[in-house]
Amino acid sequence: MNVLIVGVGLIGGSFSLALKKNEGLNFAGFDQNKAYLSKACDLGIVDQTFDNLSEGIDWADFVVLAIPVKGIKILLPKILDQLAPHQFVVDFGSTKKSICLAVDGHSKRNQFIAAHPIAGTEHSGPEAAFEDLFKGKNLILCDTEKSASDKLSIFEELSIQAGFYLTKMSASEHDRHLAYISHLSHITSYVLSQTVLNKEKDGEVILDLAGSGFESTVRLAKSSPAMWSSIFLENKEMVLRGIEAYKTELTRLEDMIKSDAENDMFQYLEEGRRIRKILK
Amino acid sequence: MNVLIVGVGLIGGSFSLALKKNEGLNFAGFDQNKAYLSKACDLGIVDQTFDNLSEGIDWADFVVLAIPVKGIKILLPKILDQLAPHQFVVDFGSTKKSICLAVDGHSKRNQFIAAHPIAGTEHSGPEAAFEDLFKGKNLILCDTEKSASDKLSIFEELSIQAGFYLTKMSASEHDRHLAYISHLSHITSYVLSQTVLNKEKDGEVILDLAGSGFESTVRLAKSSPAMWSSIFLENKEMVLRGIEAYKTELTRLEDMIKSDAENDMFQYLEEGRRIRKILK
Repeated sequence: MNVLIVGVGLIGGSFSLALKKNEGLNFAGFDQNKAYLSKACDLGIVDQTFDNLSEGIDWADFVVLAIPVKGIKILLPKILDQLAPHQFVVDFGSTKKSICLAVDGHSKRNQFIAAHPIAGTEHSGPEAAFEDLFKGKNLILCDTEKSASDKLSIFEELSIQAGFYLTKMSASEHDRHLAYISHLSHITSYVLSQTVLNKEKDGEVILDLAGSGFESTVRLAKSSPAMWSSIFLENKEMVLRGIEAYKTELTRLEDMIKSDAENDMFQYLEEGRRIRKILK
Repeated sequence: MNVLIVGVGLIGGSFSLALKKNEGLNFAGFDQNKAYLSKACDLGIVDQTFDNLSEGIDWADFVVLAIPVKGIKILLPKILDQLAPHQFVVDFGSTKKSICLAVDGHSKRNQFIAAHPIAGTEHSGPEAAFEDLFKGKNLILCDTEKSASDKLSIFEELSIQAGFYLTKMSASEHDRHLAYISHLSHITSYVLSQTVLNKEKDGEVILDLAGSGFESTVRLAKSSPAMWSSIFLENKEMVLRGIEAYKTELTRLEDMIKSDAENDMFQYLEEGRRIRKILK
């Protein structure tokens, strides 16, 4: 089976590396970033590359779109247009509602599978890709009732081979959960980084104090700005609701500090600490 | 030399474990929490315990206060009152200005050393203590010109043996830097945890999506509520300034999302991402 990876970065590259042991699969890459593409070839992430996307699609049995959401929304309908009946396309975008909407009425909608790997690091590009990125991680499949079951089976089996466990939910449910759990985490990290960088002009001081917990809290601020500015806008409505809720909570705690309400604050932190039980 | 550890939890316990190899040192423990105290003895963190603090102080050459700031402010002046000229006391409190102020005019002020180990985990209690916690970590010493140099030398040498590197700054500088880099990180983690727990009643969903970056960003919300509610109030003025600055930054990003200002947002995230260069 021929697999075309569109976007040979951290996610696309790791998907290919995770499945390379499967001898029935051939991997090719396409990327607008030609340096990434040749790097992916050098690193053995893909066996061949295409300069022309359309040729790559003709070659492939299925296509994996591992690029920012904005790009997926543009490419996906065009790729579907071109697909023969046996082919299919999967997207790995970080938001799902707007992508599903972009092909909602498409006559080949059932040749598309909407997926989101809950895995990643703060690094990006083909050098960041590695075989075990998806081991034990969650792959969310959305609106699966709209995908052809034979194609879905093939893809599910390969995903499990890549190390994923699978969960299914609707695209809107996905975007709502992700806004609170993932997107808000990135927002608070970027904002914390900005606040501290504005105040502390001396990097040495930041480094000396990073062990105080700062490093872990701010880790996500190292993530790709192109990817995340796109995600925040694609999931705008839910993200803004998340920020609103977060600000309300922050003001609650701020008011407790202002009024020396130590008991209330203790209670508040104790509630926040319940996360321990969930994250083991 | 006899060392009395007051507070045999993560920090006090780790200090003792880090120096146990030094045969010239004997360690005893005192703790209001009797379960902690007997646990610390069982785990070999201290060789003996005192039920009566005053007796422990008489026994010790120096005393280490590894308890929340509020307790330090109460105990420290009383301990100083009791000290003979050769003895000294060190505190490991997480804020420094109010502690130094509490003994500012004390006739034995030079028998006190104000210190803050920039190390810790989200766990607490004697079971959380371990020998290497301080390896390569920063110990901040504050207002050292007010401490007797012979006592300071002894303590500095032992701290280096325990694995620390040392930095020195004034107590107010310390509190200002910590407010932004450490205290604000804890606040944003606790608030993120609250926001998500309010919204997501199903722990399973949180766990499935935790790999999206949430786990690292929210890690500090597992920290001790007693310790942190005390710190936020002890450093109230600077912490409130930090929250104010953070809210301003959050609103800036929120406005960019509201107005679809993708280029500005990209720029904003790119600036936040500069933290990569500092944290290597």
